[in-house]
Formats: sequence, C-alpha cells, structure tokens
Amino acid sequence: MDRFDVVVVGGSAGGLTAAITARRHYPDASIALVRKEKQVPIPCGIPYIFGTVGSPEKNLIPDDLLKQSRIQLFVDEVTSVDLENREVHTAGGQSLGYQRLVLATGSEPLIPPIPGMELENVFPVKKDVTHLANMLEALVKARHLVVIGGGFIGLEFADECRKRGVQVTVVEVLPRCLSLVFDPDLCARVEEELRRAGIELRTGTRAKAFLGNGKVKAVQLETGEEIPADMVILGIGVRPNTGLAREAGLSIGEQGVSVDRFMRTSHPHVFAVGDCTEKVDAVTGKPSNLRLASIATAEARVAGANLFQLRRENRGTIGVFSTKIGDLALGLAGYSEQRARAEGIDYVVAQAESVNRHPGVMPGASPLRVKLVFHKWSRELIGGQACCSESVGELINIIACMIQSGATADRIATCQVGTHPALTASPIAYPLFNAAEMALQQL
Amino acid sequence: MDRFDVVVVGGSAGGLTAAITARRHYPDASIALVRKEKQVPIPCGIPYIFGTVGSPEKNLIPDDLLKQSRIQLFVDEVTSVDLENREVHTAGGQSLGYQRLVLATGSEPLIPPIPGMELENVFPVKKDVTHLANMLEALVKARHLVVIGGGFIGLEFADECRKRGVQVTVVEVLPRCLSLVFDPDLCARVEEELRRAGIELRTGTRAKAFLGNGKVKAVQLETGEEIPADMVILGIGVRPNTGLAREAGLSIGEQGVSVDRFMRTSHPHVFAVGDCTEKVDAVTGKPSNLRLASIATAEARVAGANLFQLRRENRGTIGVFSTKIGDLALGLAGYSEQRARAEGIDYVVAQAESVNRHPGVMPGASPLRVKLVFHKWSRELIGGQACCSESVGELINIIACMIQSGATADRIATCQVGTHPALTASPIAYPLFNAAEMALQQL
Repeated sequence: MDRFDVVVVGGSAGGLTAAITARRHYPDASIALVRKEKQVPIPCGIPYIFGTVGSPEKNLIPDDLLKQSRIQLFVDEVTSVDLENREVHTAGGQSLGYQRLVLATGSEPLIPPIPGMELENVFPVKKDVTHLANMLEALVKARHLVVIGGGFIGLEFADECRKRGVQVTVVEVLPRCLSLVFDPDLCARVEEELRRAGIELRTGTRAKAFLGNGKVKAVQLETGEEIPADMVILGIGVRPNTGLAREAGLSIGEQGVSVDRFMRTSHPHVFAVGDCTEKVDAVTGKPSNLRLASIATAEARVAGANLFQLRRENRGTIGVFSTKIGDLALGLAGYSEQRARAEGIDYVVAQAESVNRHPGVMPGASPLRVKLVFHKWSRELIGGQACCSESVGELINIIACMIQSGATADRIATCQVGTHPALTASPIAYPLFNAAEMALQQL
Repeated sequence: MDRFDVVVVGGSAGGLTAAITARRHYPDASIALVRKEKQVPIPCGIPYIFGTVGSPEKNLIPDDLLKQSRIQLFVDEVTSVDLENREVHTAGGQSLGYQRLVLATGSEPLIPPIPGMELENVFPVKKDVTHLANMLEALVKARHLVVIGGGFIGLEFADECRKRGVQVTVVEVLPRCLSLVFDPDLCARVEEELRRAGIELRTGTRAKAFLGNGKVKAVQLETGEEIPADMVILGIGVRPNTGLAREAGLSIGEQGVSVDRFMRTSHPHVFAVGDCTEKVDAVTGKPSNLRLASIATAEARVAGANLFQLRRENRGTIGVFSTKIGDLALGLAGYSEQRARAEGIDYVVAQAESVNRHPGVMPGASPLRVKLVFHKWSRELIGGQACCSESVGELINIIACMIQSGATADRIATCQVGTHPALTASPIAYPLFNAAEMALQQL
C-alpha cells in the first residue's frame, strides 16, 4: 500500500488548491490527490462552454498545476475512509495511507421531483466533461431551451445559450431572478438586461411537469402555461457530497461536513474544504449554505497550511459573487439590504452612482452604481453591491476586502485609492467613498 | 463684506471635495468656494484632451456639483489671507469673512532653466482651459512632438498625441521611463509598449536647449543629438503653490504647506489639502512629494469633516498610481521594491502571474502580473504593482486597501474575493493570493 503524508480526495478548485497549498507550506511532504474525473472542468466556466468558450475541452483545469507542485495524481474513486488506520480505499481496489486527509468531495446538482425528469434532453448541470459534451450536442440541435432556475448558474446558461440562436425561457420560482443574492433594484436591472437579450422570463412560478414522449417537448408551469422545449437545463442549486464523510463517522452539520475554524473535521487528522463542508456566516455565526469556487479555494488555503501545524484560521464566510449578464456586470460581497433586514440587523444603507471613467466621454464609460450596508452600532461595512461593466469584478473585491478588514464608514470615506480617466471613476465621485459618506449622514 | 462659515480657496479636485465634504458634515454651514478659473479641467484627464477626448471643454469638472451642495462660487483670485480678522481678499477687490478656511491652491508646473524655453510652441502643462486649447491648436498643426519627461504626465501625453498621427519622442533624464514609481521590470514593459506604438525614446539624457527662431524647430540633447520638433511639451513635475499660505504667515515645510493629521495648518482655523500641502509618507513618516488628485480628495474628505469638530485623521500617504499606456494598464500602491530597498526596509518581495479571465480563451484574456512587497518584521503588505488590462485600475485599489488595513501575507492569502470567468482570474490562480503565498515562503 502506498503511504503519503497528505491525501486529498477531490480534484476541483478546493481539492487542487488544498494540495498546492500543502506543498507550499510543507515542501518535503509526499502528497497525493485522488479524483474520479479524468479531466476536471473549471467549475465557474461551465456555462461559458455553451457560448463564448465553445467546448468542454477548452474549460479544463490544467493538470500541469499538479506536476509543478509534485502532487501524485490518482484517477479513481475513493469509496471509504478508515479513520483508525488512516487509509482510504478506492473503487479501483487501491488503498492509500495518509498522515493527514483532506476531503474536497464537492457537491452535486439537486434533482427536483418533477414528473418527466427522465425524458431525453432534460439536463441537470454536472461537473463532468462527458455530460457537458452531451449537453452541448443537444444544445446545437435545440430550438427552444427552458432553463429552470433564475440564479447565477441558470442565468449564465440562459445568456450563453442564447448566443447560439436558441430561444431561451427562464423559469424562476421566486418573484425575481437572482433575488436570493441581490436586492430588488439590481434584480430588476438584470431582468431588463435578460429581456433586452431576447430571453423570456417566467418568475413567481415553477415547472409542474416536463412533457414529451421519450424526448422532452414542453415544460408545463404551475400557471398552466406550456412552454415549447426541446431542451431543459436545471440550475436550481446543489447539495454537498457528504456520503464518504458520513460513512467514515465524521460529524455532519445541516449544510455539510462540520469543520472548525482551522478546517478540521471532527477527526483531528481529517480536514474538509469546499462545497462538501458547512460554512459559517461571518456576520451571524450561523451555518451558511453558500457554495462558491472562491470560497472553496479560500478554505483550501487555510486547510493546506494547517495540516501539520495550525497556521491560519477561517473567520467565517462572507460570500462574494460576481457575474456578467448581457453587457451588465454585477457583484455582491457580504450582506444585501434584504438579508440584513431578514436577520434583524440594525443597519444603514446608502447608494452612490457615478461613471466608471472620467470624464464621461472616455471610451467604455458606463454608469456605475454602488450600494453599501453598514452595521449601525459598529459603523462597520457588512455588505456591498455594484453594477456596471467589467471593472465591477475587482471593485466588488475591494468591498470584500473592506468587509473582511472591519472597515468603518469613516475609514472607507478616507481610504486612498488610485484613479485614472481610462480605468476608474473620478476621485471626486468615486462611488465607494460617496456611498460611505452618505451612510455616515445616517449613522 | 460677505461672511461664511467656510471659505475654500481653489476649485480643483481638492478644493471641490473639501467643500462638498463640509456640506455633508455641516448641513447648515454657509460655504463659499473661490477659484480663479472660470472653468476647471479634470486634472487627470488633461492628457486625454489631446487624443481620446478631443477638446478641453469635454474635460471639465461640472459646476453642478457646487450647486447641488449649496456652495456659493466666486470666480476670483484670493491674493491675501488675514488670519487675525479671518478674512480673505481677492484680486477683484472682494473680501470674504470665514470661520474656517481651506487652502487648496494646488501646484504649478516646474519650468526648467533650458535655453529656448521662451520659443513659441514650447508648452508646460497648465491646468487652464485657454492654455490647453492653445496647446491643442499647436498639436493639430504639429508633425514632430518632443515630450520632456517620461513620468505619468509625459507618457500619457506622448501616447495620446501620437493618436493624432504626430511623430513623438520622449526625453527622460533617468535610465528608464516611470522609474520614480515602478520597478525596472514594469518600466521595461511600458517602454516596450511605447515603442510598439511608434514612440521614440531617449532615456538617460536631458534636453540641453530648445532651438529655433521664434518658433521651436528642434530639441538639442546633452548627447549632442538634435531632434526635430515643431512642438515641445514639458512634463517634468510640479511645485506646490504655497505663496498665499507663506504670506499669511503659515508654516511651510520642505514639500508644501505644513499640516497635521487632521489637515490643520499651523493656524487652527485654517486647513489645507491637495497639491499645495506637504504629505507624510505612511511607512516612514518622512515628508513626501507625491501629488495626485486622488490624494487631494482623500485629504479633502478628512479636512471637510474636521472643520468644526475633529472627526477623521490622515494616517499618512501611501500613493496609488494607475495608468494605461497603449494597451497596457499598470498600477502601483505604496512601495515598489526599489523604494523599499532605498529606504533600508527589511522586506520580502514575491510575484505571481496569471490571466485576468478564466479559462484563458475568454474574450479580453491577457496576462496579469502582480508583485507584492511585505515588511519582513510585521509581515504586513507595504506595496504592490500590477499590470494587465483595464481591471488593474480596481485591482491596484484592492492592494491599496490591504495596505491601509495593515493586511499581513497570511490574511491576504486567505482573503475571500469573488471570481468570475468573464471578469477576473481564476480562484485557484488569483495572483494576489499566489504572490502572498510565495512571500510567506520567505517570511
């Protein structure tokens, strides 16, 4: 039996980053990574396979990263963990010994109990190259696509697939798309953008059945409407893969494998990261069901460093989202206003609008809106939303950093940043500062 | 005589922001702003008038901002300050009384003692609409432009003017362009970009004389070379306008009007902000000669809030620069490696390279390089440089925020950010994190 200092189970963003981080912190350790997939899709890139990127093969995490970090790869499925003897066993009949184990078993798509789920061309979104290739093949022939779920994955699929000329309808059970993340004003902006791109929306209703004979032909809504569909994509969320951990006897929480601040499971030699773990909300301390590749990698950087010595801690998940729908990029870090309200937080909210260039005649200039949410008692930033163009991708990360450093409205208003006509808003109108100033008037 | 609670002298980025901030913090105060310019150019936008933007009139700070904040505008020149009676006197014969005075008198271009300075078509860069219109008129007719100074202003002028088809040569006394700010590797990248755009460079030499008879015809270098020139633009730096403060009897430091952490001058009722003030380096505590609109506005947000009660402090200037030359955007926050070395700081430096999209086949993908400098003893970030495309404008501001919050390499490596295929690098390869991890291996 091969023995390793570190065995990582799972090869997507979390597992890979845990292994690379372990290598950085423990240069002499022997490290193995076991994953069941021959090729691993970049998780956040999956919707883009269907439009911009063009094929699953162009959206792979390169295995070079493993080689560069001297990580031994096993393509096999781990079927059990023997905590007492520190071994994992695989479907291929291998046994690997470990000093420290990292579980990064990820998540799988929720399959709703809708009649007709078994019909041909009804697809959940699996992080599997063959499955994705089958979806693409179906899409190429499709004329009417229905996407079930108006969250990030659903909308990104809708926006990418329509670029191939297929007619797309999105069905969302909540009154607005993306409303689990953004406040209603931003949801409305996104829906406007979707409609402008020719995408049909059915919100506040759900799919009652998928109709067809062998192949899907239509989606029947609870409203009674039947939408023609020769393809259906389901993007209604994921559930953590906790089976391996549960069978090994590790503690499982409401939202996944239980871990402490050092990313240790209930067994001190076993760590867990990514979608399979239960997150802790940084503001309330409650279990959180957020699952993002960027959270997985942040957790993996904690776990990888802590394997043989505790060096870092996870101070809770804030959740940072960004996406681009049509020409609109938008992002959220931490709490939206509606989430602050739902949690009963005494908060203050302020908005500022500017242009992302200065003067406004510079190329690429477009309106930039920022909304910030502060704790009333501590004056600290707990959330921010922004929408504009591509620069929102990093702008929302400024907000994320400010939240994580406990920045108060005063600190934000007097923060020093760089500004440039071709790159940012003007220093006079920089909307982060203006929103902080406006919040201060209520604090 | 009109009396105001607040009189601000100067209407560019610093003065305007001080007045707006005063309004936000003191809603009932009467506020006047006195400036000598009828129209105020956006300072950082000035080079863009000559290419992308097209005219000085399209690069103005809108006076609406004054109206919206109920700030009374006087277009007149303040010629003296009477500290005892709390009055300012103007060239137009007006006297304005104040409870609190803010000096934001800015800077003016350095005029080098080069023979031929008086020739027609030799232009310093003044923040004056008429002067800028004259420069534009000359540029339209010019065929050979020589720019003296390879700093930000010089290079931005060079890059914009060449877009009009004029042949541009940049003369820089130091061995590399932008070398007062960036480390040599980034300077080399910028020079490559300039050459690719067809701009000629003469580095490590200086202009000895401007030749011509009435009009400039050529620039003679110390090397002996004569460069044909029917237009010369000087971008060699600025000096603070301290005359008004000096004559009023306020303390003046090495680099401008002396101010404390609350932006008060040596007189408790007089504040000063922007290019006219002496800055304090946040790392060393030494006087700093950085002058940027973004620093001016940060100072103005401190001063404006502090006028009648001390509410905020300026904890020192870090300096955040960004620009775009050709297709390359680049930025620096805080210390470069060479500056850390020159100050004798015990530092660690690390670099990471990635792509600003993921996968790398996404549109707009280009290499993204990040270099970070950490204090060795505190493990805190003191500087960062980045180059890539437009997203560098906000990426460098993430680094700026991290510096200002005292983020350590560990905190950076485990920071939570958002990532998205169309907007950012991948969460596995996010270069800020990877550079922090690499720095940790040396800490």
